[in-house]
Amino acid sequence: MNEPDFIAALRRLPLHPGARGLMDDCAVLAIGGETLVITHDMMAQGTHFREDADMADVAWKLVASNISDLAAKGAEPVGVLLGHMLGRDDARFLKGLHEALAAFDVPLLGGDTVAGEGLRSFGLTAIGRASCTPVPSRSGAQAGDQVFVTGPLGRAMLGFEGAGEHRGAFDRPVPRLAEGIALAPYVTAMMDVSDGLLLDAWRMAEASGVTLALDPAAIPVADPARADECLRWGDDYELLFTAPPSAPLPVAAHPIGMVTSPAAAPLILGGEALRDPASLGYHHG
Amino acid sequence: MNEPDFIAALRRLPLHPGARGLMDDCAVLAIGGETLVITHDMMAQGTHFREDADMADVAWKLVASNISDLAAKGAEPVGVLLGHMLGRDDARFLKGLHEALAAFDVPLLGGDTVAGEGLRSFGLTAIGRASCTPVPSRSGAQAGDQVFVTGPLGRAMLGFEGAGEHRGAFDRPVPRLAEGIALAPYVTAMMDVSDGLLLDAWRMAEASGVTLALDPAAIPVADPARADECLRWGDDYELLFTAPPSAPLPVAAHPIGMVTSPAAAPLILGGEALRDPASLGYHHG
Repeated sequence: MNEPDFIAALRRLPLHPGARGLMDDCAVLAIGGETLVITHDMMAQGTHFREDADMADVAWKLVASNISDLAAKGAEPVGVLLGHMLGRDDARFLKGLHEALAAFDVPLLGGDTVAGEGLRSFGLTAIGRASCTPVPSRSGAQAGDQVFVTGPLGRAMLGFEGAGEHRGAFDRPVPRLAEGIALAPYVTAMMDVSDGLLLDAWRMAEASGVTLALDPAAIPVADPARADECLRWGDDYELLFTAPPSAPLPVAAHPIGMVTSPAAAPLILGGEALRDPASLGYHHG
Repeated sequence: MNEPDFIAALRRLPLHPGARGLMDDCAVLAIGGETLVITHDMMAQGTHFREDADMADVAWKLVASNISDLAAKGAEPVGVLLGHMLGRDDARFLKGLHEALAAFDVPLLGGDTVAGEGLRSFGLTAIGRASCTPVPSRSGAQAGDQVFVTGPLGRAMLGFEGAGEHRGAFDRPVPRLAEGIALAPYVTAMMDVSDGLLLDAWRMAEASGVTLALDPAAIPVADPARADECLRWGDDYELLFTAPPSAPLPVAAHPIGMVTSPAAAPLILGGEALRDPASLGYHHG
């Protein structure tokens, strides 16, 4: 079964109302007068990291990718639970884990440690406290809103290829936690750009039932000569959001387009209707 | 790094107070006016299930093992997040997942779906609401308490070996959720017996700083001719707990021994001091 089919089947199971139909980055759980934001991401060797990866970087990215989901919901991290498969360089893994927990000021809550054979995988559950309710979703973009992104796309791609100045963007991405918390009261929709700007913008448009019309000249990219690739590569962890033009945004962000009522396609880039999500970015397994 | 070394290293990282020093089955998170109980367990092919396992049973056990941790804390399930690696028989996995969610009346909250290569692993995070505070821990056993277990040990072992009447105990274990919730107000310590009665009793004694003196003749086993094995095999999911002799227990349970102040070893079985946990049960990786 491929990923879209599997997720479609999951949506037919008994879902918690806070699951948001499995259409968002996180689950949202109202409890005891507070609202928790909860996410779980896995990383698998071969799919998400290479056999020779520095396990300290793998641990960092496992934490960062989950904290980025909290950032996109304006949530303050409360704790994480680690699912760890023992293997090569566990001491390096622990070092990167420690560095990430310290950098994002989030403690360990629990988890599980298992032996395994062959390729390894890890899971992390991150729990945050909503700083703002209702918690921003992917589905709230409204016709007339502006579309914004918090920073340039493609830095992780250049870092992956070995460009020294961008290595950190690939090896040690920093989620936009402060920005997400500051923006949450003002946005109509927000998500992180983990799978590439175009694919994630397409998902936001689909979830919101609108069209996002983006101006390619306005989208900040790390290498203008390779703008197409920069818009399709993942792992950048910038925030993509929509807000009314009048919103007094507390964070400097790049306006990259407008939300319109449903048009020829969920995504329009420089006047061209993009209909096939398979061409837009990185489809994880 | 082996599992005990890795967990010891995790304990030196920044821990949330609700992590209980990574000494318990679950994390406990006070939020607003409620208390959440959170656990994460992984299952890895080769370690926790065989290549030819029915994936419906694997999904069921993934849910059951986590719900059993909630049961041991007297928590009512709120929702689960699934970390799923795609592969063989995903439709069977979904069927078992659906059956488990329905049986334990717990909805899906979210998760992640990834592609992977080679052997598969899965993770599940279960979130429950404490029905009773303080939430029972492993560390509360007091000298003078009685030690109890909710049912016979060894049924999963016999089921694994093919005994028809016990197949369900291995393939489709049922956590003692109602019993755990009913018992929580009366116990001084409680945990589930996932890794074998002796090993788990040893862990409770260590966490509580006491000795558990067990009477082998009083411990219910599925096959008296193989009592030693029944006490060392895991996967039974009965609850092990301690309570004062005067406690008006609302659930029929088997008294199997007494808690004493620290004696010759954390665990004494029929007068014999058991000092080496490696001989006591199943050490997961």
